[in-house]
Amino acid sequence: MNKIITISRQFGSGGRELGCRLADQLGAAYYDQEIIIEISKRTRLSEQYIQNVMEKRPYIAYPITVAHSFSLPANDINFQMNLEIFQTQKQIIEEMAGKSDCIFVGRCADYILRDREPFRIFVYADMDSRIERCRQRASAEEHLSDREIRHNIEQIDRNRARYYSFHTDQKWGDRANYDMCLNTSRFELKQLTRMLAAFLS
Amino acid sequence: MNKIITISRQFGSGGRELGCRLADQLGAAYYDQEIIIEISKRTRLSEQYIQNVMEKRPYIAYPITVAHSFSLPANDINFQMNLEIFQTQKQIIEEMAGKSDCIFVGRCADYILRDREPFRIFVYADMDSRIERCRQRASAEEHLSDREIRHNIEQIDRNRARYYSFHTDQKWGDRANYDMCLNTSRFELKQLTRMLAAFLS
Repeated sequence: MNKIITISRQFGSGGRELGCRLADQLGAAYYDQEIIIEISKRTRLSEQYIQNVMEKRPYIAYPITVAHSFSLPANDINFQMNLEIFQTQKQIIEEMAGKSDCIFVGRCADYILRDREPFRIFVYADMDSRIERCRQRASAEEHLSDREIRHNIEQIDRNRARYYSFHTDQKWGDRANYDMCLNTSRFELKQLTRMLAAFLS
Repeated sequence: MNKIITISRQFGSGGRELGCRLADQLGAAYYDQEIIIEISKRTRLSEQYIQNVMEKRPYIAYPITVAHSFSLPANDINFQMNLEIFQTQKQIIEEMAGKSDCIFVGRCADYILRDREPFRIFVYADMDSRIERCRQRASAEEHLSDREIRHNIEQIDRNRARYYSFHTDQKWGDRANYDMCLNTSRFELKQLTRMLAAFLS
């Protein structure tokens, strides 16, 4: 069976960069934005629209398993789109996972691919180093205070948690759902990539 | 500076065995029971007594930092002994950490050695595999039900958590206090040891 690694990550923890570097070092395929592009091709929805829908939890109070039995309000298109996009995404992830060794960042891939037993990593860091990382990556025009950056980080993570728990019925970031949780606060990502690659080889 | 690794672990997760095997593979010193023996030598208390005292949280409601200002009930010898044993343990751990590359299992070593920046691992596993591991290790005469084993596991972890938080003012098992949390549920310890050794080399 292919070697499959899934990476879930707190915003600002460097999990995406770690995944990308790791794929490079392991000679594995790296899937992240590629999934959005593929969904866009299949659904004819714009990448931006898909991204927006995926970053929001479906606005509905009852669980996904029974949602289809109800007659939805006509304006709840976001909810319907989210379900459809998730289904397309699921299909694409399963197809990609069958092709070669690969690394998925986010997108509930740990849950979608659970029958293939991926190695599931959760990447996290303390708030100070996440703020620092966000600041380093910000464009020259961006002038956010630490408080604003922190607010953004918390907002994005809240959305990720909601999206994940809605589609998986699991708690995002709960260590029970991962094989390894890795704290990037005290390490260089390059160094951690080398260490992780050795672990996974 | 020496390479120092600290391992905290849920009872039944295999953390102790992992630490022992890892030390062997990395050619590092392994400290666990050795610390109790050394405390016993220095305090002239029996190893069994030290072990008993260390497995219980000091029975007192006010925080450790102010405890000495109060006049303690005469019968609260357990509390006093716990403090004294912890101080001796702290000294021993610091001495041992200065000697060579080493691995400490438990004993708040992650906290005691924080200024030396050890690599701090928390080893955990799901309840089923912890029960299974306990069953495999039980002597032939022991005939505990799963429920009884589970009860023991929870009791021991509760004591560990109390002991740790009392002496460190940190939450035992909180990922913020570790560099890596490792789930042993789906892996053989031998295999995980090789992977970890590669990661840490």
